[in-house]
Amino acid sequence: MTLGKVVGTVWATRKDEQLTGMTLQLVQELNMDGSLKSKFVVAVDSVGAGVGETVLFAQGSSARQTELTRNKPVDAVITAIVDKMDNPGN
Amino acid sequence: MTLGKVVGTVWATRKDEQLTGMTLQLVQELNMDGSLKSKFVVAVDSVGAGVGETVLFAQGSSARQTELTRNKPVDAVITAIVDKMDNPGN
Amino acid sequence: MTLGKVVGTVWATRKDEQLTGMTLQLVQELNMDGSLKSKFVVAVDSVGAGVGETVLFAQGSSARQTELTRNKPVDAVITAIVDKMDNPGN
Amino acid sequence: MTLGKVVGTVWATRKDEQLTGMTLQLVQELNMDGSLKSKFVVAVDSVGAGVGETVLFAQGSSARQTELTRNKPVDAVITAIVDKMDNPGN
Amino acid sequence: MTLGKVVGTVWATRKDEQLTGMTLQLVQELNMDGSLKSKFVVAVDSVGAGVGETVLFAQGSSARQTELTRNKPVDAVITAIVDKMDNPGN
Repeated sequence: MTLGKVVGTVWATRKDEQLTGMTLQLVQELNMDGSLKSKFVVAVDSVGAGVGETVLFAQGSSARQTELTRNKPVDAVITAIVDKMDNPGN
Repeated sequence: MTLGKVVGTVWATRKDEQLTGMTLQLVQELNMDGSLKSKFVVAVDSVGAGVGETVLFAQGSSARQTELTRNKPVDAVITAIVDKMDNPGN
Repeated sequence: MTLGKVVGTVWATRKDEQLTGMTLQLVQELNMDGSLKSKFVVAVDSVGAGVGETVLFAQGSSARQTELTRNKPVDAVITAIVDKMDNPGN
Repeated sequence: MTLGKVVGTVWATRKDEQLTGMTLQLVQELNMDGSLKSKFVVAVDSVGAGVGETVLFAQGSSARQTELTRNKPVDAVITAIVDKMDNPGN
Repeated sequence: MTLGKVVGTVWATRKDEQLTGMTLQLVQELNMDGSLKSKFVVAVDSVGAGVGETVLFAQGSSARQTELTRNKPVDAVITAIVDKMDNPGN
């Protein structure tokens, strides 16, 4: 999974109907020290993550393995809200 | 999903017959501030997106989860036309 | 899909037997203006694309959705020969 | 697979319930000479790898082919702890 | 597929049991002129490729389409040993 921060939300009225009702969050990737990378994705939120929270997201076919996203045209999904990171080995 | 802008169209007569009738759009990736990246893909359009519109596209096996693209040799599909982005957390 | 140009051919006698009879083309990625990128792949040709032609190729599991490549250990396949690109939005 | 080093651990209470009980390790990619790259992933540990150990991890759908991760929204899994690397050809 | 050169071997005793008996080769990516890139993967060898040989490898789910790797947590597999490359179009 990839470490990121929810930095915003995307709205789309005209879309594949399988996306109806999903929250689309802008998630910017994080470095291990918590600083923001320039890279970002638009991910479906399956855990109620709000703007400002640090999250993990899954990509590719693994993004379709949540109850919400199964068999949907979704290639990125937020699967966890991070409480803490220990990074002694770096 | 990835944020992009439709910047053109590709025509191909000689192609895998499973692609017949599909619209192939040139989609250039966008930064969060709306500026264009150099990276781009050729994506099948499943939502009627025209040149100049900001869209979301799905890649990989997730690109085959729309009615139009199921089981087709398609690795990028436009799934939504973006109305608005809120980006308070950046 | 990704835009590329066929720039050569690869021969391999010792290979997974599922690849027998497939043409393996060197495909170099293209920028939108038609200039060559340094990035390239070795793709199975499913449409009779020759050296010098501009093509589209699909990657990942989508590369196994042609008649020729189904269930084969192939992660890149040429699916179309490009006739024309319109790029008014760039 | 990708060569990496376990450099830390991630804790998340609010998460997709399919991730319950999994250990989430911070894995930083390694160069062939053992030096650290900046690139890293958060991978599920299926082999008991501790901080400081050199490992291999699998990504994408292949990350769901272990007993622990099958059908779970996991896109990176540690599958081996490296004992030794011989690198005569470089 | 990706062009690479076998430059070494990886040994791992503690690993997912589905990897038992597989040869894990260090494969460094090649440029079209045969020079080495810094990018590399650890790939399962399915064709008896030795150190120093130029090979093709498949990645992602396509890496699980050989007899040896089917349904295994393997995301890179060597599928061919390259005899010759013609590169007239570059």
